[in-house]
Amino acid sequence: MALTFEHWNPKTAERFKKFVPTKGIDGFLGIRIDDVAPGRLVASFEVSDEMITMIGNMHGGCLSAFCDHVLGVVLYPVMPEGSWAATTEFKINLLKPVSDGSCTATAEVISMTRTTAVVRIDIANGDRLVAVAQGTCLIMAPKS
Amino acid sequence: MALTFEHWNPKTAERFKKFVPTKGIDGFLGIRIDDVAPGRLVASFEVSDEMITMIGNMHGGCLSAFCDHVLGVVLYPVMPEGSWAATTEFKINLLKPVSDGSCTATAEVISMTRTTAVVRIDIANGDRLVAVAQGTCLIMAPKS
Amino acid sequence: MALTFEHWNPKTAERFKKFVPTKGIDGFLGIRIDDVAPGRLVASFEVSDEMITMIGNMHGGCLSAFCDHVLGVVLYPVMPEGSWAATTEFKINLLKPVSDGSCTATAEVISMTRTTAVVRIDIANGDRLVAVAQGTCLIMAPKS
Amino acid sequence: MALTFEHWNPKTAERFKKFVPTKGIDGFLGIRIDDVAPGRLVASFEVSDEMITMIGNMHGGCLSAFCDHVLGVVLYPVMPEGSWAATTEFKINLLKPVSDGSCTATAEVISMTRTTAVVRIDIANGDRLVAVAQGTCLIMAPKS
Repeated sequence: MALTFEHWNPKTAERFKKFVPTKGIDGFLGIRIDDVAPGRLVASFEVSDEMITMIGNMHGGCLSAFCDHVLGVVLYPVMPEGSWAATTEFKINLLKPVSDGSCTATAEVISMTRTTAVVRIDIANGDRLVAVAQGTCLIMAPKS
Repeated sequence: MALTFEHWNPKTAERFKKFVPTKGIDGFLGIRIDDVAPGRLVASFEVSDEMITMIGNMHGGCLSAFCDHVLGVVLYPVMPEGSWAATTEFKINLLKPVSDGSCTATAEVISMTRTTAVVRIDIANGDRLVAVAQGTCLIMAPKS
Repeated sequence: MALTFEHWNPKTAERFKKFVPTKGIDGFLGIRIDDVAPGRLVASFEVSDEMITMIGNMHGGCLSAFCDHVLGVVLYPVMPEGSWAATTEFKINLLKPVSDGSCTATAEVISMTRTTAVVRIDIANGDRLVAVAQGTCLIMAPKS
Repeated sequence: MALTFEHWNPKTAERFKKFVPTKGIDGFLGIRIDDVAPGRLVASFEVSDEMITMIGNMHGGCLSAFCDHVLGVVLYPVMPEGSWAATTEFKINLLKPVSDGSCTATAEVISMTRTTAVVRIDIANGDRLVAVAQGTCLIMAPKS
């Protein structure tokens, strides 16, 4: 049941892969886009001391913010240019504590219409699956 | 159907209200705990330019990280001292875009056993309700 | 932050309160609408032997189907006549097992636009809160 | 990141595949277990007129009850004999309306400890993906 996409903008994909965030919550996390294909995106960040709580594990909020981020980003290369995507809801299960290494999210578009898309995300820390998420983005057409 | 709590530690509550985070994702957001009562917590942060995306609105990840944070924090004053709380899952609906002002979360413990708690969260931006969430924390007893 | 609604159709509300389902999953559960106000609905069903599993508790699917049902129904009296509402996503936390008595859901519209609404639901069994849910309905305008 | 399971009871799996429910919400839906492997289960039901609402589509509650059902059932063959599984929370996205044919759920255990498991579910109607879900079961050890 693989989806096909009406739009595919490889330039957007390439731009994302080169982007180094210097501010914002993606800058705080240091999210890098590793790979982009139609309806699929791989992104990662390095766990830093800054993200570890008193309990000794990474703050769960890092993974939920990461999810929110990739949920929208995976859509840009498959939307008409000039469109916007905004996460409207998602649900995350945090499966295992994370304390070091890097976190890699694989996001996949499960369903897409002109105005909405459902995306699933797997987050791994090394070879351990540490979180899974599922959510919806609203797609806003370019202002004409 | 208001809950009663076996434990209530007003010192923890007071310590939280005075805490100014200087690092971590709570430091990035600048989360302050405004009010704490048994099973209820109010926290807030100021929206900064740093949190605004290219689209002109606050990154949704700020609200999901905020939720993850208050989901655990609301439990500490009602857990046996030395216990740990870790968000295991939550779901958030982002209702309206946020672009300035402050965001205030009200978290309420809906259900609690010795090992688990379900919490609901409302997030307001001024007089607008901008997000609602619902999730579960695992409670780990102090190591004896 | 109480919502105000552009539409309110008391006749729809009255019709719902008199409706006795004889088929469908609402008929299987025997759902009755007890009370309807703008953006708020109370519905209930009696737990029957039919709903109890081998383990001796009510099948959780009864509560999730109940949620799905009230999520849409709460919207009809506040939509333009002829509109349709369809649940597009929801999340439920099952807090306590149920084995007899009746289950009463209170559904409240938290946010509403012309095309979408977010609803929260509390389900009680006697004086125990047994489930909480949060979800989204799509609203489809009447065909002109 | 495929899971391995400490327990695997092929007799339970075989018994499930032969089971024809005559009562309960699984009986109402007519759920049949088509295939069972360690941590994976395929189940289906036929859409009947009984399940269609006034709008002409199947009641969404049928799919959410179906999810709740398979969320627990997928665990029995991989739990120690005599254990119980109870859905404690799940989230479902309803992607497309269903009006006839059969609905087939594929449930997969994503993460499992002695006390808890996270499961993902895909539901197809013919070759269309019509719902995706993600949730948690509590596992209760056999009473000794």
